[in-house]
This record gives sequence, structure tokens and C-alpha cells, in this order.
Amino acid sequence: MTILDDAAEFARSASFRNIPEEVFAIGKRALIDFLGLALRGSREAVSRIVQSYVGSMATTPESKVFGTNLSVSRNLAALANGVSGHSLDFDDVSWTTLGHPTVTIAPSVFATGEVVKASGKEILSAYAVGVEVAHKIAALVMPQTSSNGWHTTSVFGPLGAAAASAQLMALEKDPFTFALGIATSTAGGLRANFGTMTKPYHAGMAAFNGTTSAILAGMGLTAARNAIEATDGFGQVFSGGRLEKNTVDFGNPWDIVKPGLVFKKYPCCSGAHPAIDCLLEILHKTPFTPDQLESISVGVSQLGPLELVCHDPGTVTEARFSMEYALAVAVRYGKVGLEQFESSCINDPQVKELIPKIQMELDPEFSPLGLIGTAPAKLHIVLKDGRTLDGRCDLAKGNPEKPLTDGELSSKFLECVSDIITPQNSKRILKDLFAFEKIDDINSILKMI
Amino acid sequence: MTILDDAAEFARSASFRNIPEEVFAIGKRALIDFLGLALRGSREAVSRIVQSYVGSMATTPESKVFGTNLSVSRNLAALANGVSGHSLDFDDVSWTTLGHPTVTIAPSVFATGEVVKASGKEILSAYAVGVEVAHKIAALVMPQTSSNGWHTTSVFGPLGAAAASAQLMALEKDPFTFALGIATSTAGGLRANFGTMTKPYHAGMAAFNGTTSAILAGMGLTAARNAIEATDGFGQVFSGGRLEKNTVDFGNPWDIVKPGLVFKKYPCCSGAHPAIDCLLEILHKTPFTPDQLESISVGVSQLGPLELVCHDPGTVTEARFSMEYALAVAVRYGKVGLEQFESSCINDPQVKELIPKIQMELDPEFSPLGLIGTAPAKLHIVLKDGRTLDGRCDLAKGNPEKPLTDGELSSKFLECVSDIITPQNSKRILKDLFAFEKIDDINSILKMI
Repeated sequence: MTILDDAAEFARSASFRNIPEEVFAIGKRALIDFLGLALRGSREAVSRIVQSYVGSMATTPESKVFGTNLSVSRNLAALANGVSGHSLDFDDVSWTTLGHPTVTIAPSVFATGEVVKASGKEILSAYAVGVEVAHKIAALVMPQTSSNGWHTTSVFGPLGAAAASAQLMALEKDPFTFALGIATSTAGGLRANFGTMTKPYHAGMAAFNGTTSAILAGMGLTAARNAIEATDGFGQVFSGGRLEKNTVDFGNPWDIVKPGLVFKKYPCCSGAHPAIDCLLEILHKTPFTPDQLESISVGVSQLGPLELVCHDPGTVTEARFSMEYALAVAVRYGKVGLEQFESSCINDPQVKELIPKIQMELDPEFSPLGLIGTAPAKLHIVLKDGRTLDGRCDLAKGNPEKPLTDGELSSKFLECVSDIITPQNSKRILKDLFAFEKIDDINSILKMI
Repeated sequence: MTILDDAAEFARSASFRNIPEEVFAIGKRALIDFLGLALRGSREAVSRIVQSYVGSMATTPESKVFGTNLSVSRNLAALANGVSGHSLDFDDVSWTTLGHPTVTIAPSVFATGEVVKASGKEILSAYAVGVEVAHKIAALVMPQTSSNGWHTTSVFGPLGAAAASAQLMALEKDPFTFALGIATSTAGGLRANFGTMTKPYHAGMAAFNGTTSAILAGMGLTAARNAIEATDGFGQVFSGGRLEKNTVDFGNPWDIVKPGLVFKKYPCCSGAHPAIDCLLEILHKTPFTPDQLESISVGVSQLGPLELVCHDPGTVTEARFSMEYALAVAVRYGKVGLEQFESSCINDPQVKELIPKIQMELDPEFSPLGLIGTAPAKLHIVLKDGRTLDGRCDLAKGNPEKPLTDGELSSKFLECVSDIITPQNSKRILKDLFAFEKIDDINSILKMI
């Protein structure tokens, strides 16, 4: 048995009956988060371009392109919806992959699910299986995949998207294995393309490639069963020749449960999130106005200066990678939501005045910890009246240990869809989504969005 | 100026007026070879599967799927024709990339050329530019790309296919650069999938991805201008972190001229060709029958065992990657042509009896030379009557230094299309193709095939 044989066997035998309940609880949250983000993101420039492309192909209408009236072939719908879902960089993150799982897998699940008229239970199973297959294989080659320069989202995404579509298509054992084998050869995507439209395109590309791999395998295309552990295989190339293990224990535990997924509370680089949490908590306890502020100094770990590279942002993209901007809008508006990353806020004179008052520096306690992804932060705030306010946050809200509440997740969804779906309909959809396992046919939801 | 800016500028200014004549002479041969192979290959099982897939997408009819009545979107036509062209593993090879250039670039050229009604001169220019861009960038990261496990065909192919389509679409400077930048993020394909249908799929995938990159860039999708030389860029990931040079001199000389292309004389992995040449020459001088053979030992260089992985092939695909099989059919039939890779030959009991008599081993003289693509071979043959026959071939027929004659190239084309086009028509097409630069609109040729 090869790793892909194991994966196919695991995926084919996993269903709503035997997957642990906590897996579905997290999966449901991921799908709610994805749908809101893909709808909102469908209006971004990059999403509009990709929608034009998939529309121009004029394929058989199979699956919905979110945020449009288009219906296209399932793999092209997965492409467009993956791009939309990732376009705001507000989607979930995995500590296993240091990448974005749901924007590659959920588009495949919804697009193929629409074709096969999948139930809510089938959608949740396919999503869970997709994440598990992708992440357990990722664990074999991480962290080298990331440190060697790859965008891990589009390296592991095709495997997850292929597993999810293959499960929904009920592929037999051999074609299921081959779908995963084909997907391994579509893995790629360079981090050098970060900061351009090609970054969100990576997510769509992974969803497209995984969905297409399942289609082709279903039609008879073969691939290597041992494409992971073989010489010149996925394990070798994505570990930089340092594959140390060649067995995988799928579902024990489920990666989606442990280490789990991180849901973003703020639409910007996760390296700023603990500092934002900390500042909003201080503002809640001790409100102050922009006029009252003398200075904020933010102590961060080593990853901070590497990720948060824009100190005086002039564009939306730059603003998403700026600690100073995130804290300035928190002081100015009392929140850090989607509207804070629109041009009107970036050009707000009060925000511009606040930015030079905020300084990010390496904290002597955090610095020795190295490149830790949790991005702990300490705040020292001085007000003009002489008062000082101090705070610290070691882990952002949204991490598995500090999950968003259902209320917070709902607010995020409703904020995302506010310009797209009427408040009445969006609340109804949200209610249906929280009871995902009761959905008879996913088309009933897709019709409403 | 980044490498991709340079590439775009070079490609946009190159045309039939300023590209050297010898470039076109070789390009013409490559396109003739490709067309014959893609027509013949269109009947292979893998090609039929991919044709079903692209047909099922039911897109706008833009470009012809060779060997069928289908017309589909240009990128899907490029996919299908790339797979057909590579399905026999009989297509040209480059020593720069240790991969197959034409099956990734020509499909993009013909598919986009059909849409823009390109002339023969424009087709030849786009093809030449595609090869040059792909191969000069390849030279920055080779041989590491190959030694690290990648199928170089689908690593460099997207760049060539993107450059070719972008030139035919007359993209402006910025979108031209972005087309190449998008293409870098679609590079991939694992050598672990050799011996399965996913290998020819790699060629189609590269043609599809490059053609799509040009379409998307034309619609406004952006990418990193420095995607080759940047940190976490193409150069870093495909050289395994060992990029030593970050400038490229495009067109000086043209890679297609020096080191040039290798046209295959036998429809199997080129790693076996010198050994086949050598054996056929021995058989010509000293004929012997299968019954007379005691053993053949073949001494090869390091690439041999990595490429020729099937030692007792049971399928056509496996047979193409088997040194033992190639030599067995040479002994049995006195030739290694297309018909030797049909099931009847693979199941021939006399061939099966010969296979265990043939042993491939690393030769102590060739081994220290590393992963050289020329695949030199030494043969030591022992006959049952005690005679021994020895031979050696350092370079196969079809290499730039030992080119196929026009007659050999024509015979190969006519053999390829013999079941598909009437002899009269195929000779007429061949005559037109040898005068490629006189074609007014490539549709006149495409209509006939």
C-alpha cells in the first residue's frame, strides 16, 4: 500500500457516519467563513478578471460562479471561487501548512457538490477528507516546502481538492488513487508572486487542478500510486530531498481538530492580530480618542518585521501588511473590519496623523523565540495627559485555543455579504449554514447566494 | 529590468525579419515532426481520454483538436494536442532542459495561431521565441531542476507556451511580462509519474497553462516582474536554492541552434536510443536470430536507471521506458518503429523470452560523467555459439551533430499519418510544411489535417 492508496482508502471509507462530530463542527465554520469571503471577494478586481476568463470559455453550465449570474464547468467554477475566496487574504490559515486550506478545497466541494446534488453531510465529509488528505501529506514535507520558497496553499491544495471532488464523485479505489497522483503533478506556485494578483490566482489554480484531476481520473487517466514516496516524487521535491518519513496515519487525529484551523478576525496579515486584539481590549476598558494619543510602541517577535513590511501604506494591499496602519485604524474607528481596508480609510487624514505615533520594535522577551507564527505582542501606550496603558497578547483570537464565537463568525459573514444579499436573506442563509448537516441538497443554499 | 522584462522585450521585438534563417530551418522541422506525432498520437488511449475531457467542457469552438472533429477553446485545444504530441514519447528533446520542448510550445502556437489566423512566418516566429525564452531561463536552473526530481518538460514548458501565445496575441509589454510571471507559478510535474498517462498529460498541462497565462495577462491579471530572480522565485525553487546567475542573453546564440534539438528516430525514451543505434548497427553487420542470443549487457550512464525504469514491461507505456524491451524488439524484428510499441509486440512470446537475457548496468567509464543526457551506451553481446559482439554509441542519430535527413523526417511524418490522411494528401501537406514560411494563414493547413 502506498501513501496515496492509503489516502484513497481512508477517503472512500470516511463518511458522516464515522467522522468525529468535532471535525464537522470545525468544517462547518470553515465553510461558512469561506462562503462569506468568496461572495465579498467576488467583487475584487482579480476576481472579476478570472470571472471574465471563465465566462469567456462558455462551457457547459454546471456550477455557480459566486457573486455572478454565471454557471460554468465545475473546475472553472472552482477556479473562480477559489480566487474570490482568497482575494481579501481574510480566509483561514493552517499551522500545519502555513497556508490557506479552505480556499483550495471548499471551491472544489461546492462546485462538484452542486453537480452531484450533494447533501450537507456529504459536503461536510468531502471537505473534511480533503483537508485531512492534504494536511497529513503536507506534514511529511513541512516546513521545508515553505522555507524553500513555495506558496504552500497551491502545493497542498490540489491534493485536498482532488480528494474532496473524488469523494463526491464516488470514484472507485483505483481512479481515486490516480486522481491524487495526477494532483501531485499540478502542485506549485511561487511565493515570489505574493503582492500581485497571481497570489489569489494560486488558490483558484489549486482548486481547478484538484477538481480537474478527479474528472480526468474518473475518465481513466492513470498516475503513479507511489507519487508521494517514490524517487522523484512529491515528498522528495517538496521537502528539498529531505523526506524523512513515508507513512501517514490519516484521521488519527484529524488535522482539522489538532492542530486545527485559524479563522481570521481582521482582514490583514495575521502577524498583526495579537496586537490588534490587545489594543481593542485596552480601548474597551479605557477608551481614548485619536487626539489624546501621544504614542504606541508595539513589541513583536522576529516574524513581525519580516511580514509587516509596509510602515506607511498607500494602497489596500500595502495596508494589509502594516502593523502601524492596523493599530491606527483601531484607534480611529474602534474596529478593524473590511471597511477599514478601503481607500477612504487609507486616505483618512486622522489615520495618516496617527501612523507616525506608532512604532513596531523587536521585544527582548519574544526575540529569542525565533520565527514563531503566533506573533505575540506587547503594547505600551502613552496618552497626552501622562497616563500610560500596557497590555500583552500571546495568541490572537481565532486560533484553535481561542476560537471565534459563533456570534463573531456570524458577524464576519454578515459583514462580508452585506452589499450582496439582503439582511433578511443573509440571516436565513446563515441559519441554514449553522445547520449544515440538515441540508438535503446543497443547491438549495447555492440558489440563495 | 528583470529577466522577465528582458524576455518580454526580446520576444516582442523578434519577428521573421530579424530572426536568423537557421532558427526557422530547425523550427520548421520541429513543427513538421510535431504535427505528424500529434496526429498519430491522437489515437492513443491517453489522448482519447483528454479529448473526451476537453470535449465535455463544450467551450466556444476556437481551435482544432488534432485527430478529431472537435474545436474547443484555444487553451483546451493546446492541452489535448500537447498530450497527443507527447503520448508516443517520440517527440523532440533538448539537451538544455533534458525535456521535450515542442510538445509544450507548438500546441500553444497552433491553437492561438488558428484564432489569430497567423501566417507561416508568424507561427515560426512564435515557436522560435517560445523555445528561446523557455530554454534560456531553463539554463539558469539546470541541471538541478532535473536532478531534484522534476519533469523539466512541464517546468519550462509553460514559459515557452506563454511567450509563444503572447507574441501571437501581440500583448503589450506589461501584460507580456505578466503572462510569463503567471506561467512561472504553473511550473511543476513530478518524474515519479513517468510510466503513467500523467507523463504525457504534463506536456498538455504545460501547453494549457502557458496559453492560459497569456489569456489571463491579456485580461489584466498581474504577476511579479522579478518572478525568476526574486527571493522565493522560479530560479530559487527550481535550482534547489542554487541560482548562480541572474541575467540572460536571449537570442545570442539561439538555443534551438546551439545546442539545438534532438529529433527521435525511435518511439521510446531517448535514454535507450544510442543503445538501439548500436544494436541495429551490430545486427546489420552480424545478423543473428533471437534463438542465437545468450545475453546482452548494456552499460549506461547515470541517467539510464533513472529514466528506463520498466524492466519487464506489460503495457505500451511501460515498454517506452524499458531498455530491455527496446533491445528485445530490435533483436526480434530488426527495427524499433511505431508498430513495435503495439500490444501484439509486447505480448509476443519471443520478445518476452528475450527480455530476461538483457541486463542494463552502470558503466564504470560513463558513471563519473553524472546525469549526461546523451545517454552513451556500450553493448556486450554473447551468442550461444560462444561468439561475442561489442559495440559502443556515444550519441544517437537525430542529435544536432547527427541530424535526421529530410528524407528520414519525411518518412517519420508519413508513417505517423498513414492511417489518418490519404497518401496523396499527406504528401501535399508535407510539401506545404517544408515551405512553411509561404503559408498565408495556418488555417489552410489545419483544415487539411
